[in-house]
Amino acid sequence: MRIVVALGGNALLHRGERPDAEPQRRNVLHAAEALVSLAGEHELIVTHGNGPQVGVLAMESAADPMLSRPFPLDPLGAETHGLIGYWLMQSLHNVLPHRRVVALLTQCVVDCADPAFTHPTKFVGPTYDEAAARALATERNWVVAPDGDAWRRVVASPEPLEVVEESVIRTLTDNGVLVVCAGGGGVPVLRHADGTLEGVEAVIDKDLTAALLAERLGADALLLLTDVSAVETNYGHADSSPIAVATAEELRSFGFATGSMGPKVEAACRFADRTGGVAAIGSLTDAAAVLAGAAGTRVIASRG
Amino acid sequence: MRIVVALGGNALLHRGERPDAEPQRRNVLHAAEALVSLAGEHELIVTHGNGPQVGVLAMESAADPMLSRPFPLDPLGAETHGLIGYWLMQSLHNVLPHRRVVALLTQCVVDCADPAFTHPTKFVGPTYDEAAARALATERNWVVAPDGDAWRRVVASPEPLEVVEESVIRTLTDNGVLVVCAGGGGVPVLRHADGTLEGVEAVIDKDLTAALLAERLGADALLLLTDVSAVETNYGHADSSPIAVATAEELRSFGFATGSMGPKVEAACRFADRTGGVAAIGSLTDAAAVLAGAAGTRVIASRG
Repeated sequence: MRIVVALGGNALLHRGERPDAEPQRRNVLHAAEALVSLAGEHELIVTHGNGPQVGVLAMESAADPMLSRPFPLDPLGAETHGLIGYWLMQSLHNVLPHRRVVALLTQCVVDCADPAFTHPTKFVGPTYDEAAARALATERNWVVAPDGDAWRRVVASPEPLEVVEESVIRTLTDNGVLVVCAGGGGVPVLRHADGTLEGVEAVIDKDLTAALLAERLGADALLLLTDVSAVETNYGHADSSPIAVATAEELRSFGFATGSMGPKVEAACRFADRTGGVAAIGSLTDAAAVLAGAAGTRVIASRG
Repeated sequence: MRIVVALGGNALLHRGERPDAEPQRRNVLHAAEALVSLAGEHELIVTHGNGPQVGVLAMESAADPMLSRPFPLDPLGAETHGLIGYWLMQSLHNVLPHRRVVALLTQCVVDCADPAFTHPTKFVGPTYDEAAARALATERNWVVAPDGDAWRRVVASPEPLEVVEESVIRTLTDNGVLVVCAGGGGVPVLRHADGTLEGVEAVIDKDLTAALLAERLGADALLLLTDVSAVETNYGHADSSPIAVATAEELRSFGFATGSMGPKVEAACRFADRTGGVAAIGSLTDAAAVLAGAAGTRVIASRG
């Protein structure tokens, strides 16, 4: 089988952990170990989140006195591809000594007319007081919004439309190479009328890009692996219960929150509806059981 | 022809320029434009420096109050691969719309017994006063040394022995993909007896890695492109004169300085002596003429 795996950002930097290098490297190694049994039997394409890491680099860049202005999000995202891609490819090499492994930088095309650009919703970078946030909004053409008691920059999270490196990823997978790619959903770019690409200040949901890539590469399965064991009907409440299997239609009717299971559920539903392939959400440590349907939440195509 | 090109770090961040994102992106685009005529006729593998960029990230990491200690050089180097690789692959895509282009993260194996580790020579990161430098040396197991009036950390610059992703680079090149790789000479790693890899705090000379890669990939030419038009006999002096062509033996006899043309000359000499292929050093803006022998310095194999 050809399987696209999406690793949640929390698999790489655990909640509450400092963003130091060593714990992240160790977490990435554990993630790689959790994928060994799958990689032994299947073609794997591994994608990953980058939320905490891009936040750290955005803050460092904002604090750098050598810079006239902080780096935009597209080069910062590319830096996190380098960082996480390096750790992942080294760890996968170490646990799978007979596989060729490589990490690719990936660009993902979005539409400048995507409504997300008029209603940005994703917080990035440091917190400010309201006055400082409004001053930066004017100076840097940012959108800012309250986040709890503080203010932060908000950016758009547009729909992923095309993974620019798709055909290279296909060539490598066809040649038996385990590919790490589409980190953080890929670096968001616009494609102009003449075909040229330009980076854009946005973040893309990594699970939606993974679903797009899985569909385009003709993958048999899309596994969205995170630190929870299954999608639950009423997460965080006493009456919550795990969902073992549901149609895309049923799952969407629950209305999972954007900040929680929403994007994972939407990504799994799209892949199931568009391809009829295996789409599942579950714990990284149960990876093989999630593929087999013995753990996690399996999403099947809507009826009719 | 199959050509390995090494772009000098100064092609990406000009001397004296602030390390802001926008001028670097623009410089990278100009570098890509300078490679269009070569890429139109030949297979290209593009490598690049990362000295200024890794310095910036090392300083930002050292100043980050969220971290218990600054990131080691291997993940910082990987971040610069992401950054420069992204700009390069996007720019090359924009000037070569019909070529598939990709940027790969690259690891380069070095030997822990390399004498460079006992005599580190490469300055990295911020400057300190002597007392602070000595305190950090104790705390972080660094080697520090005077750099002009200030003190800085020094790290080893060991010999590149093996590009871990060599066979993936060959697969992609054989399939017509223009590959950007081996940024900053590759992330330095040790290979343990059981075959596993581990990052190591060092920097690798990017031109020496480019020469190794060119030899291993069976390249016909190695072009080391920078911001000077040729190697000169007595650079910076009134009686200096450009060298159009010389044997490796003759060039080595000049004893070029490690901090100046030394590594480029050594890289070109190794490739010429080991393969008999075209090895040349010259200006990025003259790339096609340097390949043709009409500009720059051509290095030919030593006689006998």
